[in-house]
Amino acid sequence: MMDLIQALQQTLEHEIPLTQHLALQVISYDERGLTLGAPLAPNINHKRTAFAGSLNSVVTLAGWGLLWLILQEEEIPARVVIQDSACNYQRPVSDDFTAFCQKPAPAEIARMVEALRKRGRARIELHVEIRNATAVAVSFTGRYVILQAS
Amino acid sequence: MMDLIQALQQTLEHEIPLTQHLALQVISYDERGLTLGAPLAPNINHKRTAFAGSLNSVVTLAGWGLLWLILQEEEIPARVVIQDSACNYQRPVSDDFTAFCQKPAPAEIARMVEALRKRGRARIELHVEIRNATAVAVSFTGRYVILQAS
Repeated sequence: MMDLIQALQQTLEHEIPLTQHLALQVISYDERGLTLGAPLAPNINHKRTAFAGSLNSVVTLAGWGLLWLILQEEEIPARVVIQDSACNYQRPVSDDFTAFCQKPAPAEIARMVEALRKRGRARIELHVEIRNATAVAVSFTGRYVILQAS
Repeated sequence: MMDLIQALQQTLEHEIPLTQHLALQVISYDERGLTLGAPLAPNINHKRTAFAGSLNSVVTLAGWGLLWLILQEEEIPARVVIQDSACNYQRPVSDDFTAFCQKPAPAEIARMVEALRKRGRARIELHVEIRNATAVAVSFTGRYVILQAS
Protein backbone atom coordinates (compact mmCIF):
# COMPACT_ATOMS: atom_id res chain seq x y z
CA MET A 1 0.00 0.00 0.00
CA MET A 2 2.79 2.39 1.00
CA ASP A 3 4.52 1.95 -2.36
CA LEU A 4 1.28 2.67 -4.22
CA ILE A 5 0.67 5.81 -2.16
CA GLN A 6 4.18 7.09 -2.90
CA ALA A 7 3.80 6.21 -6.57
CA LEU A 8 0.54 8.19 -6.78
CA GLN A 9 2.14 11.16 -5.00
CA GLN A 10 5.02 11.16 -7.49
CA THR A 11 2.67 10.72 -10.45
CA LEU A 12 0.55 13.69 -9.39
CA GLU A 13 3.57 15.93 -8.80
CA HIS A 14 5.22 14.92 -12.05
CA GLU A 15 2.25 14.80 -14.41
CA ILE A 16 0.15 17.67 -13.03
CA PRO A 17 2.61 20.35 -11.89
CA LEU A 18 -0.17 22.55 -10.45
CA THR A 19 -0.58 19.97 -7.64
CA GLN A 20 2.73 21.25 -6.23
CA HIS A 21 1.22 24.74 -5.91
CA LEU A 22 -1.86 23.24 -4.24
CA ALA A 23 0.61 21.42 -1.91
CA LEU A 24 -1.49 18.32 -2.51
CA GLN A 25 -0.62 15.26 -0.41
CA VAL A 26 -1.76 11.66 -0.76
CA ILE A 27 -2.77 10.88 2.82
CA SER A 28 -4.08 7.31 2.86
CA TYR A 29 -5.56 4.53 0.73
CA ASP A 30 -7.29 1.37 1.89
CA GLU A 31 -10.32 -0.76 1.04
CA ARG A 32 -12.63 2.12 1.99
CA GLY A 33 -11.11 4.67 -0.35
CA LEU A 34 -8.54 7.38 -1.01
CA THR A 35 -7.87 10.49 1.07
CA LEU A 36 -6.00 13.48 -0.34
CA GLY A 37 -5.08 16.53 1.73
CA ALA A 38 -4.04 20.13 1.18
CA PRO A 39 -3.12 22.98 3.51
CA LEU A 40 -5.26 26.11 3.59
CA ALA A 41 -2.42 28.63 3.11
CA PRO A 42 -1.61 28.15 -0.61
CA ASN A 43 -5.31 27.69 -1.41
CA ILE A 44 -6.72 30.65 0.50
CA ASN A 45 -9.13 33.24 -0.90
CA HIS A 46 -10.40 36.71 -0.08
CA LYS A 47 -12.67 35.36 2.68
CA ARG A 48 -9.74 33.54 4.38
CA THR A 49 -11.31 30.23 3.38
CA ALA A 50 -10.30 27.75 0.69
CA PHE A 51 -10.73 28.91 -2.93
CA ALA A 52 -13.45 26.97 -4.78
CA GLY A 53 -11.06 26.23 -7.65
CA SER A 54 -8.61 24.57 -5.25
CA LEU A 55 -11.39 22.56 -3.61
CA ASN A 56 -12.63 21.45 -7.04
CA SER A 57 -9.09 20.51 -8.12
CA VAL A 58 -8.59 18.35 -5.03
CA VAL A 59 -11.93 16.49 -5.30
CA THR A 60 -11.43 15.95 -9.05
CA LEU A 61 -7.98 14.48 -8.31
CA ALA A 62 -9.31 12.30 -5.48
CA GLY A 63 -11.55 10.54 -8.02
CA TRP A 64 -8.79 10.43 -10.63
CA GLY A 65 -6.29 9.12 -8.08
CA LEU A 66 -8.61 6.40 -6.83
CA LEU A 67 -9.05 5.09 -10.38
CA TRP A 68 -5.29 5.30 -10.98
CA LEU A 69 -4.72 3.13 -7.88
CA ILE A 70 -7.38 0.58 -8.88
CA LEU A 71 -5.88 0.30 -12.38
CA GLN A 72 -2.45 -0.28 -10.84
CA GLU A 73 -3.87 -3.04 -8.63
CA GLU A 74 -5.64 -4.62 -11.61
CA GLU A 75 -2.48 -4.20 -13.70
CA ILE A 76 -4.39 -2.56 -16.54
CA PRO A 77 -2.49 0.13 -18.44
CA ALA A 78 -5.13 2.80 -19.04
CA ARG A 79 -5.68 6.51 -18.83
CA VAL A 80 -8.43 8.30 -16.95
CA VAL A 81 -10.18 11.51 -17.97
CA ILE A 82 -13.04 13.33 -16.33
CA GLN A 83 -16.19 13.68 -18.42
CA ASP A 84 -18.37 15.88 -16.21
CA SER A 85 -18.82 16.82 -12.59
CA ALA A 86 -21.19 18.50 -10.19
CA CYS A 87 -19.92 20.21 -7.07
CA ASN A 88 -21.87 21.59 -4.14
CA TYR A 89 -20.03 24.09 -1.92
CA GLN A 90 -22.21 23.69 1.16
CA ARG A 91 -20.02 25.23 3.86
CA PRO A 92 -16.79 27.25 3.87
CA VAL A 93 -13.52 25.39 4.47
CA SER A 94 -11.48 27.49 6.88
CA ASP A 95 -8.63 25.14 7.74
CA ASP A 96 -6.31 22.57 6.14
CA PHE A 97 -8.57 20.03 4.48
CA THR A 98 -8.86 16.46 3.25
CA ALA A 99 -11.00 14.99 0.46
CA PHE A 100 -12.21 11.40 0.71
CA CYS A 101 -13.21 9.40 -2.38
CA GLN A 102 -15.11 6.25 -1.48
CA LYS A 103 -14.03 3.08 -3.31
CA PRO A 104 -16.83 1.63 -5.44
CA ALA A 105 -18.25 -1.77 -4.43
CA PRO A 106 -16.22 -4.78 -5.69
CA ALA A 107 -19.01 -5.67 -8.16
CA GLU A 108 -18.82 -2.19 -9.69
CA ILE A 109 -15.04 -2.40 -10.01
CA ALA A 110 -15.44 -5.85 -11.61
CA ARG A 111 -17.88 -4.37 -14.16
CA MET A 112 -15.44 -1.58 -14.97
CA VAL A 113 -12.55 -4.02 -15.42
CA GLU A 114 -14.69 -6.28 -17.63
CA ALA A 115 -15.77 -3.34 -19.83
CA LEU A 116 -12.13 -2.27 -20.16
CA ARG A 117 -10.95 -5.77 -21.10
CA LYS A 118 -13.82 -6.31 -23.57
CA ARG A 119 -14.23 -2.89 -25.15
CA GLY A 120 -11.07 -1.01 -24.09
CA ARG A 121 -13.26 1.64 -22.49
CA ALA A 122 -15.31 2.07 -19.31
CA ARG A 123 -17.18 4.77 -17.45
CA ILE A 124 -17.66 5.18 -13.70
CA GLU A 125 -19.25 7.69 -11.33
CA LEU A 126 -17.45 8.57 -8.10
CA HIS A 127 -18.39 10.57 -5.03
CA VAL A 128 -15.97 12.73 -3.08
CA GLU A 129 -16.51 14.73 0.09
CA ILE A 130 -14.56 17.38 1.95
CA ARG A 131 -15.64 17.68 5.59
CA ASN A 132 -14.92 20.49 8.01
CA ALA A 133 -14.80 19.81 11.77
CA THR A 134 -18.49 18.98 12.04
CA ALA A 135 -20.17 18.44 8.67
CA VAL A 136 -19.82 17.97 4.93
CA ALA A 137 -18.41 21.16 3.39
CA VAL A 138 -18.04 20.11 -0.26
CA SER A 139 -19.91 17.33 -2.02
CA PHE A 140 -18.75 16.24 -5.49
CA THR A 141 -19.87 13.73 -8.08
CA GLY A 142 -17.61 13.09 -11.05
CA ARG A 143 -18.07 10.84 -14.07
CA TYR A 144 -14.78 9.49 -15.40
CA VAL A 145 -13.92 7.69 -18.62
CA ILE A 146 -11.18 5.05 -18.54
CA LEU A 147 -9.43 4.24 -21.84
CA GLN A 148 -7.18 1.24 -22.12
CA ALA A 149 -3.72 2.21 -23.36
CA SER A 150 -3.16 0.88 -26.87
CA MET B 1 -13.40 49.86 -18.61
CA MET B 2 -9.60 49.62 -18.61
CA ASP B 3 -9.42 50.67 -14.95
CA LEU B 4 -12.00 48.05 -13.98
CA ILE B 5 -10.10 45.32 -15.84
CA GLN B 6 -6.86 46.26 -14.07
CA ALA B 7 -8.67 46.42 -10.73
CA LEU B 8 -10.09 42.92 -11.25
CA GLN B 9 -6.66 41.59 -12.26
CA GLN B 10 -5.12 43.03 -9.09
CA THR B 11 -7.98 41.77 -6.92
CA LEU B 12 -7.62 38.23 -8.25
CA GLU B 13 -3.83 38.20 -7.80
CA HIS B 14 -4.02 39.67 -4.33
CA GLU B 15 -7.03 37.85 -2.89
CA ILE B 16 -6.61 34.43 -4.53
CA PRO B 17 -2.85 33.77 -4.70
CA LEU B 18 -3.33 30.51 -6.66
CA THR B 19 -4.39 32.62 -9.68
CA GLN B 20 -0.71 33.61 -10.01
CA HIS B 21 0.24 29.94 -10.43
CA LEU B 22 -2.56 29.53 -13.01
CA ALA B 23 -1.06 32.64 -14.72
CA LEU B 24 -4.63 33.90 -15.00
CA GLN B 25 -5.16 37.07 -17.05
CA VAL B 26 -8.21 39.29 -17.35
CA ILE B 27 -8.46 39.67 -21.13
CA SER B 28 -11.51 41.82 -21.83
CA TYR B 29 -14.82 43.05 -20.44
CA ASP B 30 -17.66 44.69 -22.31
CA GLU B 31 -21.46 44.62 -22.51
CA ARG B 32 -21.33 41.03 -23.80
CA GLY B 33 -19.33 39.63 -20.91
CA LEU B 34 -15.97 38.87 -19.33
CA THR B 35 -13.08 36.90 -20.87
CA LEU B 36 -10.30 35.43 -18.74
CA GLY B 37 -7.27 33.66 -20.20
CA ALA B 38 -4.55 31.28 -19.07
CA PRO B 39 -1.55 29.70 -20.80
CA LEU B 40 -1.38 25.92 -21.17
CA ALA B 41 2.14 25.48 -19.72
CA PRO B 42 1.47 26.01 -15.98
CA ASN B 43 -1.86 24.19 -16.27
CA ILE B 44 -0.72 21.13 -18.21
CA ASN B 45 -1.47 17.53 -17.28
CA HIS B 46 -0.20 14.05 -18.11
CA LYS B 47 -1.99 14.06 -21.48
CA ARG B 48 -0.33 17.39 -22.49
CA THR B 49 -3.72 19.08 -22.27
CA ALA B 50 -5.12 21.44 -19.63
CA PHE B 51 -5.75 19.93 -16.17
CA ALA B 52 -9.48 19.76 -15.33
CA GLY B 53 -8.85 21.49 -11.99
CA SER B 54 -7.26 24.46 -13.76
CA LEU B 55 -10.12 24.64 -16.28
CA ASN B 56 -12.64 24.52 -13.43
CA SER B 57 -10.77 27.23 -11.52
CA VAL B 58 -10.77 29.56 -14.52
CA VAL B 59 -14.49 29.11 -15.35
CA THR B 60 -15.44 29.50 -11.66
CA LEU B 61 -13.43 32.75 -11.55
CA ALA B 62 -14.94 34.00 -14.83
CA GLY B 63 -18.37 33.92 -13.16
CA TRP B 64 -17.03 35.37 -9.91
CA GLY B 65 -15.16 38.11 -11.80
CA LEU B 66 -18.18 39.09 -13.87
CA LEU B 67 -20.25 39.58 -10.70
CA TRP B 68 -17.39 41.52 -9.08
CA LEU B 69 -17.37 43.89 -12.08
CA ILE B 70 -21.16 44.33 -12.09
CA LEU B 71 -21.12 45.10 -8.35
CA GLN B 72 -18.38 47.70 -8.93
CA GLU B 73 -20.47 49.31 -11.68
CA GLU B 74 -23.55 49.31 -9.47
CA GLU B 75 -21.45 50.61 -6.55
CA ILE B 76 -22.75 47.91 -4.21
CA PRO B 77 -20.26 46.66 -1.62
CA ALA B 78 -20.90 42.93 -1.52
CA ARG B 79 -19.13 39.61 -1.56
CA VAL B 80 -19.71 36.74 -3.95
CA VAL B 81 -19.49 33.03 -3.16
CA ILE B 82 -20.18 30.04 -5.36
CA GLN B 83 -22.97 27.75 -4.19
CA ASP B 84 -22.77 24.93 -6.70
CA SER B 85 -21.60 24.21 -10.22
CA ALA B 86 -21.80 21.69 -13.02
CA CYS B 87 -18.99 21.33 -15.51
CA ASN B 88 -18.88 19.34 -18.72
CA TYR B 89 -15.42 18.57 -20.10
CA GLN B 90 -16.48 17.91 -23.69
CA ARG B 91 -13.17 18.15 -25.53
CA PRO B 92 -9.52 18.38 -24.49
CA VAL B 93 -7.91 21.84 -24.34
CA SER B 94 -4.48 21.52 -25.91
CA ASP B 95 -3.40 25.16 -26.17
CA ASP B 96 -3.53 28.43 -24.23
CA PHE B 97 -7.19 29.04 -23.48
CA THR B 98 -9.82 31.66 -22.69
CA ALA B 99 -13.07 31.38 -20.74
CA PHE B 100 -16.01 33.61 -21.63
CA CYS B 101 -18.78 34.40 -19.12
CA GLN B 102 -21.80 35.93 -20.79
CA LYS B 103 -23.30 38.96 -19.02
CA PRO B 104 -26.89 38.35 -17.88
CA ALA B 105 -29.65 40.38 -19.54
CA PRO B 106 -30.19 43.89 -18.06
CA ALA B 107 -33.51 42.77 -16.53
CA GLU B 108 -31.79 39.93 -14.69
CA ILE B 109 -29.07 42.24 -13.37
CA ALA B 110 -31.79 44.67 -12.25
CA ARG B 111 -33.54 41.85 -10.35
CA MET B 112 -30.27 40.90 -8.65
CA VAL B 113 -29.58 44.51 -7.64
CA GLU B 114 -33.13 44.92 -6.32
CA ALA B 115 -32.87 41.72 -4.24
CA LEU B 116 -29.53 42.91 -2.83
CA ARG B 117 -30.89 46.36 -1.92
CA LYS B 118 -34.09 44.93 -0.38
CA ARG B 119 -32.85 41.77 1.31
CA GLY B 120 -29.07 42.15 1.34
CA ARG B 121 -28.78 38.86 -0.57
CA ALA B 122 -29.24 37.63 -4.14
CA ARG B 123 -28.61 34.53 -6.20
CA ILE B 124 -27.73 34.25 -9.86
CA GLU B 125 -26.85 31.50 -12.36
CA LEU B 126 -24.08 32.13 -14.88
CA HIS B 127 -22.81 30.22 -17.91
CA VAL B 128 -19.16 30.04 -18.91
CA GLU B 129 -17.55 28.38 -21.92
CA ILE B 130 -14.02 27.51 -22.92
CA ARG B 131 -13.67 26.98 -26.68
CA ASN B 132 -10.85 25.32 -28.55
CA ALA B 133 -10.11 26.26 -32.19
CA THR B 134 -13.36 24.85 -33.54
CA ALA B 135 -15.89 24.02 -30.81
CA VAL B 136 -16.91 24.28 -27.16
CA ALA B 137 -14.41 22.35 -25.03
CA VAL B 138 -15.74 23.10 -21.52
CA SER B 139 -19.27 24.12 -20.60
CA PHE B 140 -19.93 25.36 -17.05
CA THR B 141 -22.97 26.53 -15.11
CA GLY B 142 -22.42 28.09 -11.70
CA ARG B 143 -24.89 29.38 -9.12
CA TYR B 144 -23.49 32.24 -7.09
CA VAL B 145 -24.74 33.93 -3.91
CA ILE B 146 -24.14 37.66 -3.46
CA LEU B 147 -24.16 39.01 0.09
CA GLN B 148 -24.23 42.75 0.71
CA ALA B 149 -21.34 43.82 2.95
CA SER B 150 -22.67 44.93 6.34
